Amino acid sequence: MTDTDAPAISWPRLEARLAELARIGDTGDGGCSRLALTDADREGRDLVVSWMRELGLRVDVDGIGNVVGTWPADATEAPVLTGSHIDTVRTGGRYDGNLGVLAGLEAVETIITSGLELARPVAVAFFTGEEGSRFAPDMFGSLVYVGGLPLEEALDTVAVDGAVVGDELERIGYVGPLPCPARPPAAFVELHIEQGPVLEAEGDTIGAVTGVQGISWQEVTVTGQSNHAGTTPMDHRHDPAYVAAALAVFVRELADEAGPPQVATVGRVELHPNLVNVVPARATFTVDLRHTDDDALRAAEEAFAARADALAATEGVTVERRSLARFAPVEFDAGMVDRVERTARARGHSVRRMPSGAGHDAQMLARVCPTAMVFTPSVDGISHNPDEHTLPADLEAGAGVLFDVLVQLATEDDPWSDGAGPA
Amino acid sequence: MTDTDAPAISWPRLEARLAELARIGDTGDGGCSRLALTDADREGRDLVVSWMRELGLRVDVDGIGNVVGTWPADATEAPVLTGSHIDTVRTGGRYDGNLGVLAGLEAVETIITSGLELARPVAVAFFTGEEGSRFAPDMFGSLVYVGGLPLEEALDTVAVDGAVVGDELERIGYVGPLPCPARPPAAFVELHIEQGPVLEAEGDTIGAVTGVQGISWQEVTVTGQSNHAGTTPMDHRHDPAYVAAALAVFVRELADEAGPPQVATVGRVELHPNLVNVVPARATFTVDLRHTDDDALRAAEEAFAARADALAATEGVTVERRSLARFAPVEFDAGMVDRVERTARARGHSVRRMPSGAGHDAQMLARVCPTAMVFTPSVDGISHNPDEHTLPADLEAGAGVLFDVLVQLATEDDPWSDGAGPA
Repeated sequence: MTDTDAPAISWPRLEARLAELARIGDTGDGGCSRLALTDADREGRDLVVSWMRELGLRVDVDGIGNVVGTWPADATEAPVLTGSHIDTVRTGGRYDGNLGVLAGLEAVETIITSGLELARPVAVAFFTGEEGSRFAPDMFGSLVYVGGLPLEEALDTVAVDGAVVGDELERIGYVGPLPCPARPPAAFVELHIEQGPVLEAEGDTIGAVTGVQGISWQEVTVTGQSNHAGTTPMDHRHDPAYVAAALAVFVRELADEAGPPQVATVGRVELHPNLVNVVPARATFTVDLRHTDDDALRAAEEAFAARADALAATEGVTVERRSLARFAPVEFDAGMVDRVERTARARGHSVRRMPSGAGHDAQMLARVCPTAMVFTPSVDGISHNPDEHTLPADLEAGAGVLFDVLVQLATEDDPWSDGAGPA
Repeated sequence: MTDTDAPAISWPRLEARLAELARIGDTGDGGCSRLALTDADREGRDLVVSWMRELGLRVDVDGIGNVVGTWPADATEAPVLTGSHIDTVRTGGRYDGNLGVLAGLEAVETIITSGLELARPVAVAFFTGEEGSRFAPDMFGSLVYVGGLPLEEALDTVAVDGAVVGDELERIGYVGPLPCPARPPAAFVELHIEQGPVLEAEGDTIGAVTGVQGISWQEVTVTGQSNHAGTTPMDHRHDPAYVAAALAVFVRELADEAGPPQVATVGRVELHPNLVNVVPARATFTVDLRHTDDDALRAAEEAFAARADALAATEGVTVERRSLARFAPVEFDAGMVDRVERTARARGHSVRRMPSGAGHDAQMLARVCPTAMVFTPSVDGISHNPDEHTLPADLEAGAGVLFDVLVQLATEDDPWSDGAGPA
């Protein structure tokens, strides 16, 4: 096969599917809102499943609602798997997750229509509840898929809105017979937008992702003494809102002092009773800490805990910390990362090896099979926001690299023999 | 009349009325929840009005729902007025406001039953919406009563829950024909719990309130750039939650550095979208600043504004400040304050002259007539909380002082001639 008649993905077809999926949960401002296991999520799932069926894939659903479309439909061997997620944050963008699923579908369609002879099956999946916006932890679908969380425990998870995962799965009709954990695939590759500013700032088109930062999510509850804001002298106060604020400032200072790649965020805060003239009785807030090095991540957690305890003692309040999610940093398979880099360079793209700042389903799959990720640039580094955007040329470039990598992994006799693929 | 047959209030009767009123909106934990113009507020109003009518008072309701019970019912002269409010914060106590209304009612009942010859009428009032928990500003009922806020403007006020004052007044049946502003009373005396720790800490039974702190309420909205908490390096962030936290810490430092009587509180905070893994787009919070000296209060406001602007520039966010309420410090009538102190001492109580940290209806009445307040101790200084409590002996002492002062003001020929009442 020469370069000129090599099979290639159809960007117009992929673009059209991205646009059609984005209409479900369209927020009217360029964004998308399909929280996990809501009606909008079901509509999105139904649409992608209909596309899988049109291609003749075998569609399997497991007990936590992960959906895998496999080609050929009668395959029994472990497939080369791609995919991502189609749930979004409450005010999300249109490419986060969706790109990886639909570019994977496009790659599979191109493999089918080009009549390529496969050494093993190919499959495209979307995993349940990747975003942690409704249910904690994030990525629980892929976590259950690889056996990192018992199915029953995941089904009992209660949402911030009071809904239960198992009930919602039943409600939207996505409880399937495929067992969890699943049989490991032969390999996993995920295409995703970077969701950060690095590729754009450096002028690179493709990120060959070396691994994923460790993530620590905590919910912190500070309980003090509610009182009158006008009559309580400052030295009589036991003010949870002050302690929460001081800890949020500390979290920022901690990250600034540690330097990159440490990041730290307080994204959620609730006071009770939350009134202008009442010193609150209680403050609840979350802390999101991430680092590529687990020792550094643990040090940040310990520094936060020490500061929280010290402030609690000084202010005369109690501080309780509850872990919402804790994932150690992940390193992807070296041969797979090399392959992504090599393949992207062969297509003429500038490539950057980089860790992922966000959590991704790929970090779960990395527990059970050789795994890699392909990143495309995010304009202004914006994501989890209606303004999230990636240039069409970059989307197409990423989908092309994903396709090439999948073809290599699905057609080579032994793609994991030495880490070296075709030039 | 000798001391032994002097008329005296009935503490059991007052105690029974306090308990009966506290049952409406009873939160089951010793507290009371009767937000202004809710169904619970209507029930409370109906009960107090029924007691007024049983005593034969003339019950007048004005256009903002203030209720005044006057004795004798056919009085035309300006009365000596007492009273307070019966609305509460969402999780309030049972004496805040209610004590002043029901002790006033008890004093009027005792005056009636004792057959005292009056030089002028007496009246007891409860004012609408003293707590600012549902509608801003706080004390808007008494503010309209004295002409400090146009009635129409007050009626258009929208609650935090979306309700409108005028609609809610109609709904609960408390729009009356008495015009606003009202004709000024001859004098006003309000009994209230201190809501702070000073009297208890100093071992004093009665506070002769010299005036009320100035109050400044602001709502601050910080708008930044929502983004992914994992992929956005710290130096790329425009984080409204961080700026809100830093300003809340600054507010505490500002009060600590200024020293008493400066107090400063951040009691309400809301983030949007308020998710663990999203740098928020927006933070909204309130700042409550109070000081007895208006120049000092203004200096605190200016320091806060300067700090907010500086932080906004550094972080690359915008900060908008909106005044929710602004009341200059109030000094009560010197002769009236002396009278409260003298009367309490004559009853054998230890008395402390002190400013009020909380806002009270009396500060509005002070604009139109000689005004004073009587404070009773708050156990542990707690208020705006179900744990709010005042010892029965202190409640009785406060009600006794209120009664004596009212009797003096209602019976002396010219109680304002020299500030000196009966020994």
